[in-house]
Order: sequence, then C-alpha cells, then structure tokens
Amino acid sequence: MRRWIWMLILGAGLAAGAPAEEGMVPLSELAGLDLAAAGFEIPAEVIYRPGGISLVDGIINLSGCTASFVSSQGLILTNYHCAFRAVQSLSGAETDYLEDGFSARTLAEELPAKGYTVRIIESYRDVSKEVLGAVHARMAPAERARAVEKRSKELVLQAERLHPGSRAEVAEMFAGKTYVLFQYAYLRDIRLVYAPPRAIGEFGGEEDNWMWPRHTGDFAFLRAYTGRNGETADYAPANIPFRPKRFLRVNPRGIASGDLVFLLGYPGRTYRHRSARFLKYEQTVRMPWVVSLYRWRLETLAEAAATDRTIQIKLAPRMRGYANREKNYRGKIQGMARLDLVGEREREEEALAAFIQSDPERRARYGDLLEKISELYDEIEDRAEYEFTLEYLIHGSDLLHGAFTAYEAAHERKKRESERKSAYMERNLDRTLQKLEITLSNTHLPIDRLFLKDMLLRALHLSPVMAIDPIRSLAGDRGAGTAEVDRFLHHLYERTGLRDPRAVMDLFKRSLAQLEASEDPFMQLARSLYGPFESLEEIRRRRKGTLDALSSRLLEVRQAFLGRRFVPDANGTLRLTYGRVRGYRPVDAVLFLPFTTLRGMVEKETGRFPFLLPPGLSERIRRGREGNGDGTDPSQLPVAFLYAADTTGGNSGSPVLDAGGRLVGLNFDRTFQATINDFAWNEGYSRSIGVDIRFILWWLREFSETPRLRVEMGIQGDR
Amino acid sequence: MRRWIWMLILGAGLAAGAPAEEGMVPLSELAGLDLAAAGFEIPAEVIYRPGGISLVDGIINLSGCTASFVSSQGLILTNYHCAFRAVQSLSGAETDYLEDGFSARTLAEELPAKGYTVRIIESYRDVSKEVLGAVHARMAPAERARAVEKRSKELVLQAERLHPGSRAEVAEMFAGKTYVLFQYAYLRDIRLVYAPPRAIGEFGGEEDNWMWPRHTGDFAFLRAYTGRNGETADYAPANIPFRPKRFLRVNPRGIASGDLVFLLGYPGRTYRHRSARFLKYEQTVRMPWVVSLYRWRLETLAEAAATDRTIQIKLAPRMRGYANREKNYRGKIQGMARLDLVGEREREEEALAAFIQSDPERRARYGDLLEKISELYDEIEDRAEYEFTLEYLIHGSDLLHGAFTAYEAAHERKKRESERKSAYMERNLDRTLQKLEITLSNTHLPIDRLFLKDMLLRALHLSPVMAIDPIRSLAGDRGAGTAEVDRFLHHLYERTGLRDPRAVMDLFKRSLAQLEASEDPFMQLARSLYGPFESLEEIRRRRKGTLDALSSRLLEVRQAFLGRRFVPDANGTLRLTYGRVRGYRPVDAVLFLPFTTLRGMVEKETGRFPFLLPPGLSERIRRGREGNGDGTDPSQLPVAFLYAADTTGGNSGSPVLDAGGRLVGLNFDRTFQATINDFAWNEGYSRSIGVDIRFILWWLREFSETPRLRVEMGIQGDR
Repeated sequence: MRRWIWMLILGAGLAAGAPAEEGMVPLSELAGLDLAAAGFEIPAEVIYRPGGISLVDGIINLSGCTASFVSSQGLILTNYHCAFRAVQSLSGAETDYLEDGFSARTLAEELPAKGYTVRIIESYRDVSKEVLGAVHARMAPAERARAVEKRSKELVLQAERLHPGSRAEVAEMFAGKTYVLFQYAYLRDIRLVYAPPRAIGEFGGEEDNWMWPRHTGDFAFLRAYTGRNGETADYAPANIPFRPKRFLRVNPRGIASGDLVFLLGYPGRTYRHRSARFLKYEQTVRMPWVVSLYRWRLETLAEAAATDRTIQIKLAPRMRGYANREKNYRGKIQGMARLDLVGEREREEEALAAFIQSDPERRARYGDLLEKISELYDEIEDRAEYEFTLEYLIHGSDLLHGAFTAYEAAHERKKRESERKSAYMERNLDRTLQKLEITLSNTHLPIDRLFLKDMLLRALHLSPVMAIDPIRSLAGDRGAGTAEVDRFLHHLYERTGLRDPRAVMDLFKRSLAQLEASEDPFMQLARSLYGPFESLEEIRRRRKGTLDALSSRLLEVRQAFLGRRFVPDANGTLRLTYGRVRGYRPVDAVLFLPFTTLRGMVEKETGRFPFLLPPGLSERIRRGREGNGDGTDPSQLPVAFLYAADTTGGNSGSPVLDAGGRLVGLNFDRTFQATINDFAWNEGYSRSIGVDIRFILWWLREFSETPRLRVEMGIQGDR
Repeated sequence: MRRWIWMLILGAGLAAGAPAEEGMVPLSELAGLDLAAAGFEIPAEVIYRPGGISLVDGIINLSGCTASFVSSQGLILTNYHCAFRAVQSLSGAETDYLEDGFSARTLAEELPAKGYTVRIIESYRDVSKEVLGAVHARMAPAERARAVEKRSKELVLQAERLHPGSRAEVAEMFAGKTYVLFQYAYLRDIRLVYAPPRAIGEFGGEEDNWMWPRHTGDFAFLRAYTGRNGETADYAPANIPFRPKRFLRVNPRGIASGDLVFLLGYPGRTYRHRSARFLKYEQTVRMPWVVSLYRWRLETLAEAAATDRTIQIKLAPRMRGYANREKNYRGKIQGMARLDLVGEREREEEALAAFIQSDPERRARYGDLLEKISELYDEIEDRAEYEFTLEYLIHGSDLLHGAFTAYEAAHERKKRESERKSAYMERNLDRTLQKLEITLSNTHLPIDRLFLKDMLLRALHLSPVMAIDPIRSLAGDRGAGTAEVDRFLHHLYERTGLRDPRAVMDLFKRSLAQLEASEDPFMQLARSLYGPFESLEEIRRRRKGTLDALSSRLLEVRQAFLGRRFVPDANGTLRLTYGRVRGYRPVDAVLFLPFTTLRGMVEKETGRFPFLLPPGLSERIRRGREGNGDGTDPSQLPVAFLYAADTTGGNSGSPVLDAGGRLVGLNFDRTFQATINDFAWNEGYSRSIGVDIRFILWWLREFSETPRLRVEMGIQGDR
C-alpha cells in the first residue's frame, strides 16, 4: 500500500468536511454554530426553534438516559440498557424476559415500566442574575452554597406552580457563574413495548463493554401514556398513548463512513475545566478506591449468583452497575496515565500562572487562585478515606440505607420545601420512595450482610483521627476485630424487623419522634450515623461554596489566557454534539474500522451468554445472499458504528441523526480510550459507539413478534 | 471514507501483483515457479543454482533455526531467540548478558556458543527408489518402517563417508512415497558476537509472543569459525572466521507495504495433508493435554524463579520453551475451533469418499482408506493418556532423563550404526551428550523433584488398564497415594549419586552390564521404564508403517480428486516462500497495519521487563526530528512488519529478502491467527512477523558498542 492511501484513510474525516469539535453544545449556543460548514443539511431552527416545533420536541430525558419518540403514538426508542431495569423488574424465574426478551403484540400487552419517567424540554431561560442575586460577598462559603441552592429551588417551585404537571430544573452551567432554568413536559406512565433477549441487548456483556469492535443490539422500545385528555398521569389501564409534538423519522438506509452525524441528548457530567489538582485526586485517590471496592463486590456477587437463577435476576442490576463503573474508571485511570493528563494540565497551569504574574492587576485578582484550589483538594484528599467509608457504609446495606433514608426524610419533612434536600422535596419524594422500593425488591440478605460487614471492617480500620465514632465504639477497648463485627451483624440481622421491604417502606409513615424511639437495631445504627453524615454534608457545602467562587474566577482568567470561550461542562441538560463516522488508531499498527457486521457477531458466538445468538443465525450468515431470502447478504449488515462525537454517560439512548436529521442509530457507549472523555476530549481517539438502525430494523423483521413496530415507524417493505 | 478506498486498501496486495500462494516450496520445485509473474526481480538461478553459487549458499540451518551469512567473514545474523541459549549459558549473576546484552568489540572477544552448529546446503538428490527398494509388500507395518529407517541411515552414512566433514540427511517429503537426500557443509565452532539486552531481544515477552502489533528487536549476531585451512573443526582459539561461498547483502532502505518479500529457511513441521481424524485428535486430545501440563509447569517455575536471579537464569530457557509452546497450542486450538477446521476437512473427505465410491476401480483401491486411518487414530486416542504420561514421566526429571538416556545409549551401542536410534549413532552421540550436559547445567533440584512428583501422581492415576507397571507397584496394594510418592521421591533424591551433572555424564562411560548392576535409585527407575518405553517405540513404528502406506495412497487419490499437485509438508529441509508485505483483518472491524514503529514501542514501555527500554529513548521519541540528530524522525522508524508468506517454527531467523534478493528483515514469529498455519494456511490471516533491518541497523548505531558490525556488513554512512 502506498503512503498516500494511508494519508487518505486517516485524513478522510477531515477531507470530507470540517473536523468535529470538542463540545457538548447547549441549546443557547446553537445559533452561534456554522452548521452548514460542518456538513449539516438542515438549519439550526429545524433542530431547535424556541416556541415552535423542532427535533428537540422528539428528544426525551428518560430517567437519566436519553431516548426519542419514533412515532406519533408516543413510541420511544432507547437503549436496551436504559430499559434494563424495567425488563428486570418484570422478570422472574417464570417470566424470564431477561432471557427471552419482551414483546408486546398489542398496546394492551405493553406493561408498566415501574419508576420510569419522561421529560421533554419545553423552554429554558438564563437565571444567573436571579440565582446569584441571593449571594453577597461577605457570605461564608457554606452560606453562599446554601443560598444558591435555596434560590434555585425557589425558582423551580415557582416555575412548576405556573405550569402544573410540568417539571423545572435550575442547572449550573459554569460553577458559581451561570445558571439556566429548564422547563420540561413530564410523563409518568411509561410502558415496556419491546426488548430483545438480554443476549442480544447486552451481546458481549461486560467483556465487550467500553470496547471496540462491538456487536451489541443495545435497543428497546417503550411507550409514553397520558390520561384521556393528554394530561400527565400515573399509570392507569385506561390511559392513552401520548401524542408528541414531533417524532423522529427513521432513515432505513443508515449512514456511511465519513458522513456527518449529530446527536441530541442529556450528557451527565464532564470535568474539562477543572484544575490539575482535581484530576490528580481523581486519578490517584478517588477512582482507585472505588475500583478496588467494586472489584471485591463484583467477585462477591458473582459467587452468590453462581447457582440460583432467581438470585441471578435479583443481583443483575447491581452487577451491571458495578462492572460498568469499575471498567469505566479503569479505562480512565489508564488513559490519564498514558496521556499524562495531569502533567499536561499542570504545564498549562504553569503557563497560566506566569500569565497571571505578568500583570499587576491580574496578579491582584487571580494571584492566589491556583494555590487556593490546591489547598482545598489537599483537604479533600486528607479526609477522603473517612468520607468514602462513611458514605459507602450508609449505602453499603439496603436495610441500613432504607432506615437511614427514612430517618433523614423525617428530619427533612420538618423543613420548608425549598430548604429540603432535593430527594425529600414533596415533588420528588414519591420517586425517591419508588426507587428505594425497587432497590429493596432486589435485596439479597446474605449479600447485604457481606457488604455491610466489609464496610464495617473498613470503618474499624480507619486511623484513629479519622474514626467514625459510632462504629469505633463497636470495637470496644481492645480495638477492631472480626469477631465483634460478626456479633454486631448477628444482632442487626436477627433482631431487625426490616427484613421485609414493606416494613422499611412503612418507616416513612412514622414521625421523627417515633423513629427516635425505635429500637430496631438498623434504625439505631442509622440514627448514630446521621450526625456524622450531616457534618459531612455541611463540609461539602462549604467546599462547594469555596470552589464556586474560585472556579468562576478561574474560568475568567483561563478564557482570557487561552483567548477563547468555553463550552460548559455536561450537567445533565440537553446538548447537541456532532462529528464524522470514523475509525481510529487505538495503538501503533492497529486501525479500528467504523462499522462492525453481523458476520463479526457470529464470529464472536460461543453459545454461552454473553456471546449467544438465536439458533440458525450462524447458518444463515454462512449461506450468504440466500440467508435473507431477499438478495441481500445478512453477513454484511452493519451492527454498530463509531463516530467522533463528544458524549458521556446520559447520552445513552441518544438518537444518532444524519445530516438531514433522520435517525440512523442509537448511541450506547464509548471506546475504552474514550472513557477519559469526561476529563479531556481528543479527535484522535475519542469515539462513541452506536447501534445501527439497519440492525434494529432487520432484527425486528427477523426475530421479533412485533411487525407492528416497523409499520408504526413508517418502514415500508422489507428494508 | 468511501467504499472504493477500502477496496483499494484490502485489495492492495492483490492489485500490486500476483497473490502469495500457500506453500513452502522445496528447491526441486523452484524451477517450476513463475517468479517474474510473482514479482521477483531475480531469476530462480540467482536463488539456487545446482553446482554453482547462489543465495542458498548464504542460508544456514543453525541448530534448528535459520540464519544467514551477512559478511565474507562468516558473520551470521539470526534471531535473538535463536541465540538465546548461547547468551543464557554464558551468563551468570556476575556476567549477566541476558540483562546487559553481549557485545564483542573484537574477534578475540567473541565467545563460543556451546552446542551450536551450522549446516549449509551443498546438494540434494531424490532417493525415493533406493529407500522404497528396501520395502516389499508382504512386510508387516513395523518391519516396513524399520526398513525405511535403516535404508535411509545407510544412505546418510554412505554420503558422509564420501564427503568427510559434511553432513547428510534423508528427508521424507511425502510419507511412504518420496525421499530426498540432502548433503550439507557442517561447522561446529560457532561464537556469539552481539546480542541486545533481553529486554530488546524479547521486548513484549510472553505477553506479545505470537501477537501483533509487535515491537521485538529479535536479532543477534554470531560467527562461524573453521580450522586454519578452512576445514570443519571444533572450537579452538586459533580457528579462523569461515569464508562462506556467498553472503547476503543488506538493503538499509528496507521494504514498503505491498512489496514482495521472499524467505529461505528451514521450516520444521506442517500437517496440511493429514486427515480430519488427525486434526480432531490434535485439537481435542493431544494439544489440550500439553497445554494443561505446561500451564501448571509454568506456574510452578514462575514461583520458583520469583526471587533468586541465579535460579531465574537457570530456569529461563525452560520457561520460554513451555510458554512458547503453550501459547502456540492455545492459538491453534482456538483457531481450529473458530474456523471449524475439522468440520471443513470432514466435509472435504465426505466429498472425497463419494468420489472414491463413484468408480469401481477407485473403490477397490481406495475404498477402505479413510476408515483405516480413522481406526488408527481411534487406537492412538485410546492409548494417548498412557503414552503421554510415560513419555513426559521419563523426561519429567532431568536426573531420570539422564539415567534413562545413559541406559538407552548402552543398549544402542550394541547395535550397528545404521540400526541405532538416531541420537545414539556415532555421528550424533557427541551432540546428544552436549545437549544433555546443557540441560543438566540448568537443573534446579527442587523443580526437578516437583515435576517428577507431578508425573508420578499422573501415572498413579491412570486407569488400571493403562497403568505403567513399575509405577503402579509403587503404590502398593492400597492404591495411589501422595504419601507413598513422597517417600519414593525422598528415596530417589537422597540416595542418588546423580545430583552432580558430572556423575550423570560419567554413566555414558559405563557398560550395559555395569548399568544393569547399578543400585542408584534413578538408574533403577530408568531400567524399569525401559521396557515399557521400548514397547511404545515399537508400537509407534508399527503405526508409522501402517500410516505411511495409507498416506501414500491418500495423497494419490486426493491429488486426483482435487486435480492439483501438492507441495510437501515442511520437514526441516530448505524451502522458499514468498508473499507481500500486508496487514490483515484479525477480527471484524479491526485492521492490522503492516508496520510498527519506534513510537509504538515507546508507548508500550512500562519500565519493567518485558516492556523496558534504554534510558532516554522515550525522551528522544518525544523530541521527534531532533531525536536522531540527522533530520530523520526516530519515532517513525519501523520496528517489525507483517507479510503473507508461509512459515512455521524453524523459519525463525530466516532472512526476509526483497524482490532483488537483499536482506530487509529477519523472520521471527507468526500472528496468533497464524499459529494454525501448521494445519492450514490462509491468505486472509496467515501472517508472519519480521524485525525490520532498519531497526537493527539503527540499534547497532545508537545502542551497541560494535560499530564494526555495520562496517562489516558494508553499511555506509549513518543510514
């Protein structure tokens, strides 16, 4: 191969149009982009038109994931992994929808996806002035943070009063600086319509997770329902399908290598404007601690789930969650070390420091900035072991977590709505309880006890200056011992009345005084941990107040220094991102191509989960063109594809749209190298992974019992 | 990227010339190839000219590896791993040439590479008639095999008598059908000239072994010496460098992607013409057994070598050997399963069976063929556990192996030269003893005992019908037990006089009667195993006789059926193979590019063996063009490259030659997918790996203390 061919290949993305730019662009910045130059075939107003109808009306925040409407009847397309909890909670050893998949042949067969909600953006406005108006210069940091929190909540409550049935949120775009109020339509009756077998929806499982090449059929369908008159309503059999203002059209021809794609979605959190000191803390302190804890938990869960299918189903969401996070963090730690991200940011900050020092006025205003941030993280790092342990202890056992939540709720109920912690505001309490109920329905007591034991032992091994007092007292004078912990656990689990989830839920009906008087050992433990936890919350509030003020100044001076404006970090609000369908070089002498095929899926098959395919599929691939019976060769069918867009967690389920705004795929993951997107994005290796619409449509046609879905999406013929 | 670009990339090898063909072509077939059409710029006579001087005169069989002369002074270039035993045996904790590398600045500093020999082909002739003349139809199978063996040895001895100082061999090209006598010049004074540190020569170690992308500097230099008059001689300080008839010219500009390369070398063994039944036996019986044994041994060795550098050095060759084989077999087992090689061959044989049945004459001649072969492997499979155990038991302990060899030698000495087992023929005995001596110099008694214990326990656990009698008697009436084995091992190792290697070597001076009378417990054990082992050898001779006759007929009918002639399987004789420099798709959506670079090597660096680089190298790569001080960018320097040629073990060290016959690299490995080359070759994924001459020359310039080597190879200037 001649050199020019390689240049052509590697430059193809660039040659074919402007390069993708780092950035999860908020709606407010949309008008400032030159979309046509980037390769869009539609103007910004088609994507978002304030007060009018646009693609954004078809985009959903589905309980933290992204999803989209794909029919006028409220049909929702999202990732399998976003619908996983619904599939799991409807499954038992008898109706094993995890193993078999779920397929509603009629509307009547669609089952409630408990706990799921839909938010659709209605409008937004900048409320920075209103929020920061609550702050004044002489406030102590914690007071400052509290004031911002309170004012934000007041704005939310006010907005929701004005638009009953809707939801509002105040999002911090730049810490301590910019705040935006978003208004959402809100739906609560969401039902499961179709999910493939887990073996398809999670094909490749944890082994392939965060990896390329990928062959995961990570899609599922749900449907939003409303009351008879289109109003937001809780589940009721008589409810009717929601009629979205706009739904996305599917492009059954899919996309090609080098083409532009764009995504709309709700990316969760990124940290691209943070200091080197923060990055170092993440890389060397926080993430390694979590990785080590989760690895142990995963081994423990795997052992427990080894034999019994009912326990397997119960523990499945937990295992997925830990495994996903553990691998993500591992990828980040590796990537940060490989790219020397901390070193790079440090070098940038050295230059920034010189820039600050070079001008007396700047020196006066920003001279202490980096040092102050550094000091704050020194403190965080010093106390990290204590804080992680306390937090993971409270959440380490579902029973303790339940008791603690009930006790905390009783305290919070005494406050005014706008002063409560978010989870306990009237508007959120139902969801909080519903989530807890789901968690408790998956509690497996032997695991609960093992996890709590582990956290108690960790707590007992904290150095004396960091001891969690109520736990230390357990050990008596002779110091920490496994025997004492075992005795204590025996006491907890034998004497408690909370082994039945209903008993935990009942606690929320009790008054604070009743809970104070309770002799249930879990409630006693929860009470003893409440004080330390409240102190921790206050410390964090103080840190946030301090950091907000520092961050706001850091942003100013970095923008001046680098001579450009920044796109705000992801914060769970709607963003647009775009890029080209492109492979990349993960390491020397290896090129990842941007499409996987059905043939590759069959090549991975082992006959055991997670590399399990329906009977006969391999045979059809081998038969080639005869396999599909329509002259097309199923072996070449695209399954997943790569694109250089900027995504993070929360973008799961985001529609991948072509230059004309038609749906060509569903975003579901990033590559291992791209796990560090959260800290830094790079055109060379940051790639997101989508499942190809052609695979979804083919699967529906060949393996589902719901031909109605293709019809509903307007797919004509066999395509 | 547009589709045509991909077609261009993937078709480039094809587009640029004729595709490489499967085949390790013997010299006798060379004239039949259309080399010009394949892209060669030199005619066949430049490669091999019977009776004249050609490239083949520069090609060496170096104790089972391949090597080549690269100067008129007998300078030899081969792989580091082929010179490894020399480096290792010259090393101790004080002179650690493994860690530091070895560099002779003058001829006088070149040190003897004990046990190494050089063979250079002089001539060959077909001796099929002479060999098969010894066979007649009524011979029993074992008798037949013995007759072929004996006649071959007679031809060898005759040839060597005619050419004193040379070596001859009769090679079986097609089992039971074609035999060729090769005549070799033979050199015995071989010295180590230069070896890089092990961290370079084995960069990537076992982790990267059999893998791409690869960054291993797998090269070393030796030199052949002769007596004062150019005659073959054992090592003597006064010997002089050998003057080869021809040496290879180095092309310092290297090779490019898509270019033709060819290799001359001594590939060991392939099995491409064997039956499905044989493949199945390998895949499901023999290789898994070896993999499981070697895994355990590797773990045991790793533990023993963990702390002490002297023990590490002692055990290094064993660990490399086991690890290499274990991974190779694992690759084969995986590849055979993935490609369903057995199924494919079975389908071919079904068609072949139909072809045979379709014609009465064919049916009469070949009708029973496949069934007979199948029966033979049924027998082999039934007895496999017994046979493996017996064989690995005898070789499981160096002490037992030494005693056994001495006892066997004493028996063999009573026979005529042409009737002896090869190892004990007068012409080979010295080498056999030298090899044993090297093995014993690396014996680590605790490991020796552990390995023997493991084999004894395996032997005791054989089912009663397969029991090895002398071992079964160990267990007494109460059956197998660890305690009995431990007692027996204690007895063996405490009472033996063979812990000193010299005592083992002394056994070879004793008569058979003396050994029969010996009370050394290892000699007693060896004697007791001699009978079972001799029976096994006779059984194998019978099988070979049977299979030879069957194979010869199978070859006939397969050639008729497939309508083409076959290239004989590799058998350790000189072969030519060629192909293009090309990447490949190892799995769906991944493309392996054909060159790795120094940058990639630096990216792999961890600072610990086997990912360890000289200080400062990373820094130079980061400095880019400034790094080499000559305007070239060292980061882009090619390190290793891929080509679609047909190689196997024994091709290690083969020169990779460009279309003009100049040396552009050294073959040192295959990719994981290509481990199954031994059973089937495929243009799609069979790739061999070479170290690039540009890396070798750069390394010599920058990191060796032997500028004389570049000069001796005729490299001018800085290139």
